[in-house]
Amino acid sequence: MVDSTVTACLVIIGNEILSGRTKDKNLAHIAERLNDWGIRLMEARVVPDVEETIIATVNEVRTKFDYVFTTGGIGPTHDDITAECIAKAFGLPHVIHPVARAKMAASYKSKMEANYKSGQLNEARLRMATMPQGALLIENDVSFAPGFQVENVFVMAGIPDVMHAMLEALEGRLKGARSRRSLTIKAFLPEGDLAGPLGALQDEFPDVEIGSYPFHEDGRFGARLVMSGIDEALLEKAGEKLDQLLAGLNGERVWEGKAAPGHCCET
Amino acid sequence: MVDSTVTACLVIIGNEILSGRTKDKNLAHIAERLNDWGIRLMEARVVPDVEETIIATVNEVRTKFDYVFTTGGIGPTHDDITAECIAKAFGLPHVIHPVARAKMAASYKSKMEANYKSGQLNEARLRMATMPQGALLIENDVSFAPGFQVENVFVMAGIPDVMHAMLEALEGRLKGARSRRSLTIKAFLPEGDLAGPLGALQDEFPDVEIGSYPFHEDGRFGARLVMSGIDEALLEKAGEKLDQLLAGLNGERVWEGKAAPGHCCET
Repeated sequence: MVDSTVTACLVIIGNEILSGRTKDKNLAHIAERLNDWGIRLMEARVVPDVEETIIATVNEVRTKFDYVFTTGGIGPTHDDITAECIAKAFGLPHVIHPVARAKMAASYKSKMEANYKSGQLNEARLRMATMPQGALLIENDVSFAPGFQVENVFVMAGIPDVMHAMLEALEGRLKGARSRRSLTIKAFLPEGDLAGPLGALQDEFPDVEIGSYPFHEDGRFGARLVMSGIDEALLEKAGEKLDQLLAGLNGERVWEGKAAPGHCCET
Repeated sequence: MVDSTVTACLVIIGNEILSGRTKDKNLAHIAERLNDWGIRLMEARVVPDVEETIIATVNEVRTKFDYVFTTGGIGPTHDDITAECIAKAFGLPHVIHPVARAKMAASYKSKMEANYKSGQLNEARLRMATMPQGALLIENDVSFAPGFQVENVFVMAGIPDVMHAMLEALEGRLKGARSRRSLTIKAFLPEGDLAGPLGALQDEFPDVEIGSYPFHEDGRFGARLVMSGIDEALLEKAGEKLDQLLAGLNGERVWEGKAAPGHCCET
């Protein structure tokens, strides 16, 4: 079932996430877009701005997964060390990318000077044009500075707006498998009552992944039951069986999203 | 500087986080409470409901960090496999904990039957009382089912309310170092203009960690400058130097939180 899956790992780089000061907003967005493209996010790691940790993590995950995406640490300040670390991870020289420098020089000249009375391409900003030798740029319209790609590792900004633009720029470069489809039924039954029949249903449909995510809303207990998989017909069949199962337990149930009995599924 | 740090790793277990369907709300809370107790979250990993991955991850991080916390996967359904995985990671039998079973039996009897016409301690619910032999319970008032501890690994629920209660129950069991203090100055200057002097300030204060987190608000660029460390007097000195530095760059600046020039700092 997993053989044909194209896999990805996300490495979120930044002390600010680990201190709790900044809440990551990128993981869910990346997961959803990758799924649209037939790529499954299999793991995510949040690591500090520590050189050895970043290098070791990237070198571990780039051999384990088809694609690796990083966010954060590519700005101009002393704590932005991602680019140097990627160069070291690949054993590549860390050099100024001439195209990135030329584009940044033009952008800062035409825009920043007019708006901010500052913004020359100083030494600090030039760090954002410095990357592993041979890296492919990930251009975007939101930031003057690009992200970059080395082999299967894609280095993106941590600021959500900028990251979104960089991710969209990658669509043509990534090769996915078939995207997963899903359907969700919200069941107003305690998980402990659902668990037995739900486990039996999972055994009956090994190629459909069934997840149960409990909730407690307005004093009522229940669980969102999410079915996902590649084969839409199979998913639809499993969904109808689940619907019957819940009816048999006298459970109030709501099909969420665009799916409905006989009308499967969502990406 | 890091020698006396007590370190922790968080392992977030669940396909629903990796699919983007559910957004993690636990990392930031855990990071902040651990810091209150003098423990620093050094890494976080989000892993799927896959036995080999959970076991390998737990076995790796429990030797690397002083404490490991896990969230998720301890409910009654087939996709809740955390407890079995922890037992396998430690090579321990996976058995019913008699105290957990007795308490859960009493709770379900007195409460659930009255409220929900269901809720007997069936086979599925009994899984929530099943854990590695010798585990210490992490009791809480929110859920009938406890979390548990094996050596330096603390296994908690994924539902935020329940996780919060379990985490508070641990305060007396965790031994921290001195907690880190911090101060934050919001500077309305582009990072590229700040970066040079900020890097020099970091070199001057190697025992203060200086982070720069860019923002773009209401059309203005700037960065939150966060200084953190153990030594409050040093932090206060560094904060005042930073304040002067920003004044020298004609930058509008706001001290955030409770800190102010001469009045340091926050936990």
